[in-house]
Amino acid sequence: MTNIGLSAELHETGSKPVVFAEHRGESGKPVVLFYGHYDVQPVDPLDEWTTPPFNPTMRNGRIYARGASDNKGQFFYVLKALETLIKNDALGCSIKALIEGEEENGSAGMSVFLRKRKEMLKSDILLVTDVDTVNSGAPTIIMGLRGLISITVRLSGPIHDLHSGMHGGLAPNPAQQMVRLIATLHNTDGSIAVEGFNDDVRKPSEKELMLAESEPFNEAEYHRLTGVPPVGGEKGFNPAVRLGFRPTIEINGISSGYGGAGSKTIIPSTATAKITARLAPDQDPLTCLQKLERHLRSHAPSGLNLDIPESGIAGPPIIVHPDNRMIPLASKVMKQITGRSPVFMYEGASIPIIAEISKASGSDPLLAGFGSAQDRIHAPNESFSIDQFKRGFLYAGLLLGSL
Amino acid sequence: MTNIGLSAELHETGSKPVVFAEHRGESGKPVVLFYGHYDVQPVDPLDEWTTPPFNPTMRNGRIYARGASDNKGQFFYVLKALETLIKNDALGCSIKALIEGEEENGSAGMSVFLRKRKEMLKSDILLVTDVDTVNSGAPTIIMGLRGLISITVRLSGPIHDLHSGMHGGLAPNPAQQMVRLIATLHNTDGSIAVEGFNDDVRKPSEKELMLAESEPFNEAEYHRLTGVPPVGGEKGFNPAVRLGFRPTIEINGISSGYGGAGSKTIIPSTATAKITARLAPDQDPLTCLQKLERHLRSHAPSGLNLDIPESGIAGPPIIVHPDNRMIPLASKVMKQITGRSPVFMYEGASIPIIAEISKASGSDPLLAGFGSAQDRIHAPNESFSIDQFKRGFLYAGLLLGSL
Repeated sequence: MTNIGLSAELHETGSKPVVFAEHRGESGKPVVLFYGHYDVQPVDPLDEWTTPPFNPTMRNGRIYARGASDNKGQFFYVLKALETLIKNDALGCSIKALIEGEEENGSAGMSVFLRKRKEMLKSDILLVTDVDTVNSGAPTIIMGLRGLISITVRLSGPIHDLHSGMHGGLAPNPAQQMVRLIATLHNTDGSIAVEGFNDDVRKPSEKELMLAESEPFNEAEYHRLTGVPPVGGEKGFNPAVRLGFRPTIEINGISSGYGGAGSKTIIPSTATAKITARLAPDQDPLTCLQKLERHLRSHAPSGLNLDIPESGIAGPPIIVHPDNRMIPLASKVMKQITGRSPVFMYEGASIPIIAEISKASGSDPLLAGFGSAQDRIHAPNESFSIDQFKRGFLYAGLLLGSL
Repeated sequence: MTNIGLSAELHETGSKPVVFAEHRGESGKPVVLFYGHYDVQPVDPLDEWTTPPFNPTMRNGRIYARGASDNKGQFFYVLKALETLIKNDALGCSIKALIEGEEENGSAGMSVFLRKRKEMLKSDILLVTDVDTVNSGAPTIIMGLRGLISITVRLSGPIHDLHSGMHGGLAPNPAQQMVRLIATLHNTDGSIAVEGFNDDVRKPSEKELMLAESEPFNEAEYHRLTGVPPVGGEKGFNPAVRLGFRPTIEINGISSGYGGAGSKTIIPSTATAKITARLAPDQDPLTCLQKLERHLRSHAPSGLNLDIPESGIAGPPIIVHPDNRMIPLASKVMKQITGRSPVFMYEGASIPIIAEISKASGSDPLLAGFGSAQDRIHAPNESFSIDQFKRGFLYAGLLLGSL
């Protein structure tokens, strides 16, 4: 980054260091904060890789390596665009770049940095390319990300597994009571039954609704890709709204008693459920977590102990205002590069740190990248398309050159 | 058995052989069929035994060994009583003895024997001592045992665990749908909600009720022994009735998705629940199993596959008629030995093979033994009290001598 004309520094954080780099443009020009991460997922299972994960290899127009897409490829095209713009004195803004080393692992160092160095980060636009296009490959602008909270609930009581004959009908059964307890979280129409949980969920505006439905949802394709029809979530909302504008409470796991072949006639001594909730605009993570915990405690079964050994907030939802001034420019650039206007996507997933960076820097996020499902990020044989790399390079270059 | 005057034979069954022995008394005298088993539970964990499990050791009036109580001690006192009675020409009945080798493991060989040799078994009274007294140690006659059926239900659909952000609100969640499905098995008052499941359950007669409540239920003691208050089962029935005269559907285990520390944001690809039901008089196992399966299938979630990889019938409930002619005699003998009248117990547990033997032989069961919770059957340091052995010897001797 120093070589291409940025002033770059490594900032120790107590865990992994954060790279911060800067290039000042004319005063009065907007300040763009670019976010990326240098860490990658583990490579196992190693024997499923066709070529070694840290020996980048070109095959059929794609580069194969761990991090080829997530996130090395997707931030390197921005750096190459910056290099070109700086060399040609064509950068239309001031640039700050923030590259962390724990995106895959909770962003602890980044949080420390954000608290300590808030002033350094002041900016207008938060540029994030660590995202994918829609499945069709059409250029995509991400207009929202859901928030995320987590909670683990455990029921216990019996000093050990009890004989289900000698105690069935006498002892309360933690597995059965857990099932009853977790079933109270949803109504029969799939909506959330936790009192007040959805109080702050707002309806999408007409413009947001129009954008969310810009790419039609293909039910047959969804079924083919996942093995299930898209019948989850709440009745009465279409898929794009369910994903982008409605919260969910998902059971990520439940475990109690015997799970092997045949039968074991026990009343299990404990039962545990792992739960996460995705939050929609404008839900507050702490409020939602408190309401979820209150619901679980107020529906606790009699005769058993309920405890909550773990709970946490990953981050709040993010929503990009449809009138965000960067959208028309990004759309124009995308059309210039690909020949077609972008689709707008309200993501169901979360990138918790983005909300934190946006808040700390006072910047509006612009979320668009050139990854795709084909890249197999987090899996063996991760790769990135050279064509997509070129599109990313042109996108970043034209965007940052025309501010 | 040959040495003490019985004619004994080993019968091959295809799995473990069955011992059948006989001693014919005067014609016109009742025929008593005695049941026991020569197999034992595994000894592990071996390092928790104070003395080796197959090196019987006396300590403080108890003999320590695997099988000391279950079932060697509890059938040996009957054999010693028979030896004495035969030697003194005091046996008041014909004796048939049936000792199997797979009681702890499904009684497969016994079932084969029962089908093939039904004629040999014809008898009037089925004498079973493979049972315990109540916790107080008072002499106990078991008046009933519940039946037992089992079923495993599995939900699947997603081709692998799905990302709970990208798919939450779209994909149906097997863990969440399993919880909803299993919760439909019970009403909020704890009663069974499976349509028709309880149709054949009969009320206990006044005499049965009186017998069932002959030993008062100690709630504080139950809580101390198990860690939970006796608040399981249906509202509106007292503990003795819930245990002896009401069915249960128990969740023995449920497993789906992630169960470790922290959180894993997935929609699990499968969920499995292991279920057993205890059946009350006069429920039929096959009918109950069919109704349970029909309930699960008719409440199956949309968008997921429900399958039932395993289901089975262990055995029907057993009930001893309160006017059974052996009860007054057994009670008299017990009072003679212990100084107090027996308590009557309607057991919540099952000994599935007893119903099969009773039916094959046409005999009425008499279920009373001298085991206790102190014996730690199935656990390390199993033992049997010499005092209880003596009581058992006197019980069998006086009973079989006075028919």
